[in-house]
Amino acid sequence: MTGAPAPGGWLQAVAGDAATAARLSEARQIKDMLRVEAAYSCALGAVGHVPADMAEAAARAIEGARIDTDALARDAAMDGMPVPGLVRQLHAALPETLHPALHDGLTSQDVMDTALVLALAEILVDFEARIGRVEAVLARLKARFDTAPLMARTRMQAALPMTAGARIAAWARPLAVHRTRLAELRPRLLRLQLGGPIGTRHSLHGQGGAIARHMAVALNLQEPGVAWHSDRSALAELAGWLSMLAGSLGKIGHDIALMAQQGVDAAQIAGGGGSSAMAHKENPVGAEILVALARHAAVLVSGIHLALDHEQERSGASWTLEWLVLPGLLTSAGAALGRAEGLLEGVESLGDGPAVRAP
Amino acid sequence: MTGAPAPGGWLQAVAGDAATAARLSEARQIKDMLRVEAAYSCALGAVGHVPADMAEAAARAIEGARIDTDALARDAAMDGMPVPGLVRQLHAALPETLHPALHDGLTSQDVMDTALVLALAEILVDFEARIGRVEAVLARLKARFDTAPLMARTRMQAALPMTAGARIAAWARPLAVHRTRLAELRPRLLRLQLGGPIGTRHSLHGQGGAIARHMAVALNLQEPGVAWHSDRSALAELAGWLSMLAGSLGKIGHDIALMAQQGVDAAQIAGGGGSSAMAHKENPVGAEILVALARHAAVLVSGIHLALDHEQERSGASWTLEWLVLPGLLTSAGAALGRAEGLLEGVESLGDGPAVRAP
Amino acid sequence: MTGAPAPGGWLQAVAGDAATAARLSEARQIKDMLRVEAAYSCALGAVGHVPADMAEAAARAIEGARIDTDALARDAAMDGMPVPGLVRQLHAALPETLHPALHDGLTSQDVMDTALVLALAEILVDFEARIGRVEAVLARLKARFDTAPLMARTRMQAALPMTAGARIAAWARPLAVHRTRLAELRPRLLRLQLGGPIGTRHSLHGQGGAIARHMAVALNLQEPGVAWHSDRSALAELAGWLSMLAGSLGKIGHDIALMAQQGVDAAQIAGGGGSSAMAHKENPVGAEILVALARHAAVLVSGIHLALDHEQERSGASWTLEWLVLPGLLTSAGAALGRAEGLLEGVESLGDGPAVRAP
Amino acid sequence: MTGAPAPGGWLQAVAGDAATAARLSEARQIKDMLRVEAAYSCALGAVGHVPADMAEAAARAIEGARIDTDALARDAAMDGMPVPGLVRQLHAALPETLHPALHDGLTSQDVMDTALVLALAEILVDFEARIGRVEAVLARLKARFDTAPLMARTRMQAALPMTAGARIAAWARPLAVHRTRLAELRPRLLRLQLGGPIGTRHSLHGQGGAIARHMAVALNLQEPGVAWHSDRSALAELAGWLSMLAGSLGKIGHDIALMAQQGVDAAQIAGGGGSSAMAHKENPVGAEILVALARHAAVLVSGIHLALDHEQERSGASWTLEWLVLPGLLTSAGAALGRAEGLLEGVESLGDGPAVRAP
Repeated sequence: MTGAPAPGGWLQAVAGDAATAARLSEARQIKDMLRVEAAYSCALGAVGHVPADMAEAAARAIEGARIDTDALARDAAMDGMPVPGLVRQLHAALPETLHPALHDGLTSQDVMDTALVLALAEILVDFEARIGRVEAVLARLKARFDTAPLMARTRMQAALPMTAGARIAAWARPLAVHRTRLAELRPRLLRLQLGGPIGTRHSLHGQGGAIARHMAVALNLQEPGVAWHSDRSALAELAGWLSMLAGSLGKIGHDIALMAQQGVDAAQIAGGGGSSAMAHKENPVGAEILVALARHAAVLVSGIHLALDHEQERSGASWTLEWLVLPGLLTSAGAALGRAEGLLEGVESLGDGPAVRAP
Repeated sequence: MTGAPAPGGWLQAVAGDAATAARLSEARQIKDMLRVEAAYSCALGAVGHVPADMAEAAARAIEGARIDTDALARDAAMDGMPVPGLVRQLHAALPETLHPALHDGLTSQDVMDTALVLALAEILVDFEARIGRVEAVLARLKARFDTAPLMARTRMQAALPMTAGARIAAWARPLAVHRTRLAELRPRLLRLQLGGPIGTRHSLHGQGGAIARHMAVALNLQEPGVAWHSDRSALAELAGWLSMLAGSLGKIGHDIALMAQQGVDAAQIAGGGGSSAMAHKENPVGAEILVALARHAAVLVSGIHLALDHEQERSGASWTLEWLVLPGLLTSAGAALGRAEGLLEGVESLGDGPAVRAP
Repeated sequence: MTGAPAPGGWLQAVAGDAATAARLSEARQIKDMLRVEAAYSCALGAVGHVPADMAEAAARAIEGARIDTDALARDAAMDGMPVPGLVRQLHAALPETLHPALHDGLTSQDVMDTALVLALAEILVDFEARIGRVEAVLARLKARFDTAPLMARTRMQAALPMTAGARIAAWARPLAVHRTRLAELRPRLLRLQLGGPIGTRHSLHGQGGAIARHMAVALNLQEPGVAWHSDRSALAELAGWLSMLAGSLGKIGHDIALMAQQGVDAAQIAGGGGSSAMAHKENPVGAEILVALARHAAVLVSGIHLALDHEQERSGASWTLEWLVLPGLLTSAGAALGRAEGLLEGVESLGDGPAVRAP
Repeated sequence: MTGAPAPGGWLQAVAGDAATAARLSEARQIKDMLRVEAAYSCALGAVGHVPADMAEAAARAIEGARIDTDALARDAAMDGMPVPGLVRQLHAALPETLHPALHDGLTSQDVMDTALVLALAEILVDFEARIGRVEAVLARLKARFDTAPLMARTRMQAALPMTAGARIAAWARPLAVHRTRLAELRPRLLRLQLGGPIGTRHSLHGQGGAIARHMAVALNLQEPGVAWHSDRSALAELAGWLSMLAGSLGKIGHDIALMAQQGVDAAQIAGGGGSSAMAHKENPVGAEILVALARHAAVLVSGIHLALDHEQERSGASWTLEWLVLPGLLTSAGAALGRAEGLLEGVESLGDGPAVRAP
């Protein structure tokens, strides 16, 4: 969705998600936008609006076009988004004979939103797999420490004897529900955006429905039958899902940070971070980062909800706000998945040591 | 859920929701908590833990108990929540012979969370009906103004001629999806909370599952099989749903405020508010309030997501945060429904007047 | 500022602030608004726009007027705010001969914003005094436990031996800075609002400056020379100050909750809350509530900042958002002050017991 | 502060701030951290803890060290921050004879926080200059359009005739106050961080005060006399200031977007953005982006306030949250300054055309 959505360098290593950041990179986004433009050209051919070979030739030329990203940025600074500049470059790159098959009837929002959805589709497949991996580590931990005594703590106070297994089960439970939620969200989110300039499909040569069906098949997306230019609720739902995921993982991190305290001594973690000043320390770095990522996601979810106020037929303000917020939300949720898996993999023991007594 | 969740007086009249505020009042919450305690007593009888007549007598006494709300507040100030004080009052009110059927095995969170869910169940029925009413007004508006010319506006600029019907349809579409989302959310949210002190159901006399089934039937809730003491994701999902609803209605308000501007003149609204200084003015008050409510909800959604970090077996911090945030979110969403219905009912015309020309 | 800004009943006892809620009650707000109207009448007399005795008589009649709050709410529901209805009631209450000295030239925002500032002025005096009390308790704790050994903990891990005094000093330091910030904020915030219908003072009978000076003296406020109808930055600064205050107190709460853990045992607190299920427990309720209040404030600060986007000469949307958010922010900050003082008063010991060893 | 805090590519061109992003780049941050380490070495020499020539040689070697950023990222992934890895690289790079003058007594937080402050100091100088430029453009606009008639609009409705000059003055006023606020904030924010591992300065060879004074002079920062490891209120104040700035500029953008509407026609702006579908359109892109940036900042301010809950002597969770949030806040505020200047420079006329009539 953007050129560099996530922190890079050491901060990306600490609290970022290189895979998700790469999927959201400008280069990939350009590729996705070209893929949408090409699918549109093909669909124009399929419905007979342009000759099939012209459509095919245009699609090939579009997908093979070399985009000048400096020019793209310069144009975007004026236009407020990259599509007009991208289309200008495509117009220049394609022979004029192919122009009837290029972008004609489409609008910027169709291209950008569909390109975003293509990225989201892949990212969500990845996240779902990562949730599965976190669940698998939790299942192994549960098998290992199921009956290990653990003092339950409520309101930050020792409550009653419990087992580590009970806490691990509580960690795992929301993850399964998040998978269910994802399954429900997907068809609402992974939809073709196709509406033309004002979202009515009136610009689509009288064949909006047919074009949309062709594109949806080609891009492996739902065809919602109408544009969702000004209905951003699927993105808000995604934002909530990402933050719920980060929040559930943040709770695991918070619990482990509390368990790893000296005096509580209910978790041994390998691979804690070092201190520049205290050689004896091993910090439960991953646990703390999970807490930070959950808070970050909880803050950002607000930003996407604010963008629901998408006035009239297209709101540049709300749309831009989405671009500013969504990448960080995606990378923080992704980073939380990575950190949770790593932290849990490093667990050497869970459960109270013999020194810990019930109150 | 709380004593006075929503603003009262003139502000409640402006941006509150009296019905939802009443449903969340302290008086109703106490009634709900007593209902949960009584259902528990009955269930203890049903599973044979106490004699059936003792259970029945206890339940009757509980539901009929007069609660001293001043004492409740005094105790809550110490305990951080009302249940310990409530149970103390019940202990004093019930003859000692009934005490075995009173609260024994239950924990505060079971009572408060289930009482909350009882309120939510009713509020959501009401909200769904109100969504239906907003949809009905929109349908009538669509019938009346379907073909009225309206200049589509994108990025705050006149774009291409459109119809009022197209915009009204765009207003209505997300509401239908919100109903679908609600149907999916309900079984995850409207669940009995039953876990005992540390959420494991171990305190429930070996009959946690049976007790839960009896209570769930009596209270008309789902029985999830486990406690959700520390998994607050259903509340986060609810928060997101409420904010999505308020956001979709806020977009309608924003659009109407823009349409009602002099010079744009694309909406005539009856019942606008007056000015204390300018007798000629009629302000599209409801439209602006919808925008405010949507922003309020978008801000508050963050608070519920932060409460996902519910550490260990019970977090007083995160639980308290829910109490501080959720009532305002519910009343703002409810107020948005009421304001949207009223505003749309007052629409006298939609569509550009003859003076408005395409660019 | 509003009819019932803070949670009432048990929740107010837990996490509210009765004093601040009372100061923000509808009754007090009406009194403040009448005080502003009366000061305006007097000023009209003082500058010679109406005869002095008429001005005086009007002011007396205004301050003595009985306001029908039900009618006020009904009117506010239409007008989006209470002032037009209030002025209607005053018109009906005052003999027509006094009408020239009533509200003529003033606008709703002048009345409401100035009334708000009158409430804020008193609340901030109270808060400053409470900060002083928290500082005094901290100073006493420092004297008592200054040299008590305490294991410093960084990144949730034991670091190096320290003293309780060092931590107490760290708790106190930001409070002194908050007092400095408050001193800087006050002249920017506690300003008369006087602009007339569009904020230009043109409606003020050619004597805006003189009227403003008279009112400012009478109300003990700054006279900024211009209206601040659409510049809400002083409120955003206040919001930040309140959240900084709640945040600094939340850190104290978080620390004490961690210190009170079994196994850490670095704090003994009297007056912890009870559990409805576990008689042995004493929960550090105040500590957790401080954390909740800090998060609540941090979330709400966003809402006031969003209201900076106060479009044109008066934004009903942004103004309404302030009313929805500011009362909760004030009461949460106030509650944090009360809870902090109470929690720290209850500290029986700070510092590691003999069983706690350095790593 | 981070490797890539701001969006890059086209999105940086649209809504980013290349200058601020560059100042926050990983390369610059490493340079700043080395500068802090070198200043510490020099101070160790100045106070006589190490020989002066050793100190000087160490400082030179530190500032000239080539840092392997890949290794830095790898280490940071483990340690949760870059300083331990940085110090490892410095240890390897410096001859062992210089090691007594390297980092001994310092802690990671001293290095990172002071490096951050060095960046902030420069960024704030730049921002202040840019505020001045925005004010200058506003002054020119005021001179040009001071008496141009403009219908004042309150609550989104035409109110009374006004002048463009009155609105421009309202745009400018908060900027002057923000400069005052900045002057007050600076001494609280631009402070040396020096505390050693647990913030007490006990590790500083008995010469913490003297070392701090030397470093503060060398780095041109305040010496607060104590560490502010766990008191993050100056950063929260900065966050509020940045968001107030973005909010005031967002109001200008919102107003201009409303003025540029067809039918309102109260602003002509050069350099609007194009549409990929509608050749006739000129979108007030900068105006909308200002609204988006203001909302972004208002959302992010919450994140920095949440980080006030900096538990114990160092919170990895809260510190990490600052790193995730602050860069975006800085770049959004910076982008708002740039966009505001550009938008206002492009204003060709302000004020109602002859066709606009009072209601």
